[in-house]
Amino acid sequence: MRRFLNVIPVSEAITVIRGLAVKSVPENVPIEEALRRVLAGDVRSDVDIPGFTRSVVDGYAVRAADTVGSGESIPAILSLKGRVQMGAGTTESLAPGECIYVPTGGVLPGGADAMVMVEYTEAVGDEILVKKPVADGENIIRFNEDFSKGGIVLRQGRRLSAQDIGVLAAAGCTVVPVFRKPRVGIVSTGNELVPAGTTPGPGQVRDVNSYVVASFVRDRGCIPVPYGIVKDDRDTLRSALATAAGECDAVLVSGGSSKDDRDMVAAVIAENGEVLVHGIAIAPGKPAIIGRSGRVPVIGLPGHPASAFIVLGAIVRYLLQDMAGESGTVLVPVIEATLAENIPSTRGREDYIRVELKDGMATPLFGKSGLLNTLVRSTGIVRVPAGSEGLETGTRVEVILW
Amino acid sequence: MRRFLNVIPVSEAITVIRGLAVKSVPENVPIEEALRRVLAGDVRSDVDIPGFTRSVVDGYAVRAADTVGSGESIPAILSLKGRVQMGAGTTESLAPGECIYVPTGGVLPGGADAMVMVEYTEAVGDEILVKKPVADGENIIRFNEDFSKGGIVLRQGRRLSAQDIGVLAAAGCTVVPVFRKPRVGIVSTGNELVPAGTTPGPGQVRDVNSYVVASFVRDRGCIPVPYGIVKDDRDTLRSALATAAGECDAVLVSGGSSKDDRDMVAAVIAENGEVLVHGIAIAPGKPAIIGRSGRVPVIGLPGHPASAFIVLGAIVRYLLQDMAGESGTVLVPVIEATLAENIPSTRGREDYIRVELKDGMATPLFGKSGLLNTLVRSTGIVRVPAGSEGLETGTRVEVILW
Repeated sequence: MRRFLNVIPVSEAITVIRGLAVKSVPENVPIEEALRRVLAGDVRSDVDIPGFTRSVVDGYAVRAADTVGSGESIPAILSLKGRVQMGAGTTESLAPGECIYVPTGGVLPGGADAMVMVEYTEAVGDEILVKKPVADGENIIRFNEDFSKGGIVLRQGRRLSAQDIGVLAAAGCTVVPVFRKPRVGIVSTGNELVPAGTTPGPGQVRDVNSYVVASFVRDRGCIPVPYGIVKDDRDTLRSALATAAGECDAVLVSGGSSKDDRDMVAAVIAENGEVLVHGIAIAPGKPAIIGRSGRVPVIGLPGHPASAFIVLGAIVRYLLQDMAGESGTVLVPVIEATLAENIPSTRGREDYIRVELKDGMATPLFGKSGLLNTLVRSTGIVRVPAGSEGLETGTRVEVILW
Repeated sequence: MRRFLNVIPVSEAITVIRGLAVKSVPENVPIEEALRRVLAGDVRSDVDIPGFTRSVVDGYAVRAADTVGSGESIPAILSLKGRVQMGAGTTESLAPGECIYVPTGGVLPGGADAMVMVEYTEAVGDEILVKKPVADGENIIRFNEDFSKGGIVLRQGRRLSAQDIGVLAAAGCTVVPVFRKPRVGIVSTGNELVPAGTTPGPGQVRDVNSYVVASFVRDRGCIPVPYGIVKDDRDTLRSALATAAGECDAVLVSGGSSKDDRDMVAAVIAENGEVLVHGIAIAPGKPAIIGRSGRVPVIGLPGHPASAFIVLGAIVRYLLQDMAGESGTVLVPVIEATLAENIPSTRGREDYIRVELKDGMATPLFGKSGLLNTLVRSTGIVRVPAGSEGLETGTRVEVILW
């Protein structure tokens, strides 16, 4: 039994965990349910957008050439041919010297190539005085200037935002191909654990990890599948992991807070598969395990919720993202702030320090990493890279928001 | 009919819209459904956390005084009294010169006040050689050091994150008091609009706003209630708004892209209630309306999706946040970047410019604000404050992520 883990850098752990990811299969969902889902294919528009040259202002459709040289004192005088109705086409066509009223969003008639805003005009009977010249193309959006029929509007691998959903609607994509949400099995181990609805007896603590891990997984667009609390017993654990791996796309086992228990988790994973990583140069979170059961990734998280949470955020999120089919860089939201106190660190290890953000200052919440209260008091975390010996007061840092 | 709106600053619009917010009523949900909901009351722990003084390392519980002066060459020699089992209490008590093995997370026996990590010890039969002194309290978390029984763990108004859910579990709060999700009615107006599932005819465009607004509302923890497309007809709109205001906690009407239609939306709102704001110094988004029907806020959004989206993000979000019961500052996730091109702006107006983020550089996507393609190509937006005449190339800016 090894006392010391074979610790690898965070970047290497990320490479290993991403190597285990199997992309989820596609399914179709109605557009109303597509928000925050990941596109499983490129989406093309079934129409030209816009389908006609349209005005972006209220005013008069003109031939730009007719307005050349016009001004407040020498207006161009155009003859008004009528008005375009919203939501209808127009068969009108402008001859030189003519104009037609078009509301914002309305169709430009044939012959017109620009819009004059109503503010720069004056109506005198059937004649419109134009007091400002416009250039060809001014105040209009041309036919298919936004998207062409058959052109790709959104690409596979994109997690759909609110405005993306709008573009899908514009493109006529009301049934959306998305990747199925990965199912992630969640197991908590530990003889000391009791369910949250129970009052802990002597030496017992409530199972917090099942809830934290499930919430993290749900936040990232996966479906958490809870398998409850498993006693630190080899047979029980083996059977729980086999069930979870059989029913899910990945399994997250937390606990084994003591070395013996961690070793047992690693041993059980190895029995039915392989342990690829046992020990990561990250604090807190060092004793994390990356393994697999068949093709199903099985990840061992530290027993303490605060440590488990850091490993989830720094490493496991890449697995979930790849399984969900999300491509490209997923931006991690941060707020820049000035460090209010020194953060000491150890070279060769990525340190994640909880900080409280106030008025642009980030105050480290040192205390014991085992406490939950600093987890909820903190606004986010500051990462101290492995190559650094710490950060000094006054340094500008990026606070990774929880 | 006014041609020019009575335009007010963004900050004033926010004050007005927040003044209309009525906080939602509380309901109880199981902890499994509480993620991202907003706490409707303070939550107290029903137990001390931890309920016993526990070890945070694998090693030996000791009296710290017994280890004073110990070192590699002059170890303290302690007599091993046994082992504490995980998940069980202990009635053992340490006399001077004694120690007990305690795994991580285990109960400290009476008399012990610190833990020595197993790495700094050597077992010789029933004697343990301690090669490093520990201080009183080292490597332990004391009884109720994290939270006290009856103490507040999370306060009303907090939107529950993954780690918050963990703390609720630890505190025994498995049925969680949260504010009911506000119901937000969504109406799209415009004779030119057709449903997304339809192919637009001449002069018609697909209704994009219903989808964008519903997604925005859902992203902020509210329930979108769609009322479909309403023709630009006073009676139809009056009836649709009355229905929506009767069934929802707020109503968002989009469209009226032309001045006449906007004026009609404002007129109909005024008939059954009040128009408080018509025109905001924001670009795009200027013609927005803030009004009410009885106590129900009714907000008029610009007809173009891109403009509507800016008004939602800059102003309407405060209404939704207050209705949802969320208190305190809601941090807007940003990424700092260097501006790749000048952004010209007009003093007295807040400008929101879409930018594409790449390798730390933010490139403005100018083009026409009416295009959807810049909305999906952009990573986020840069805000140019009302007091500024623009931002220069090379300026460090905060990109507000979509």
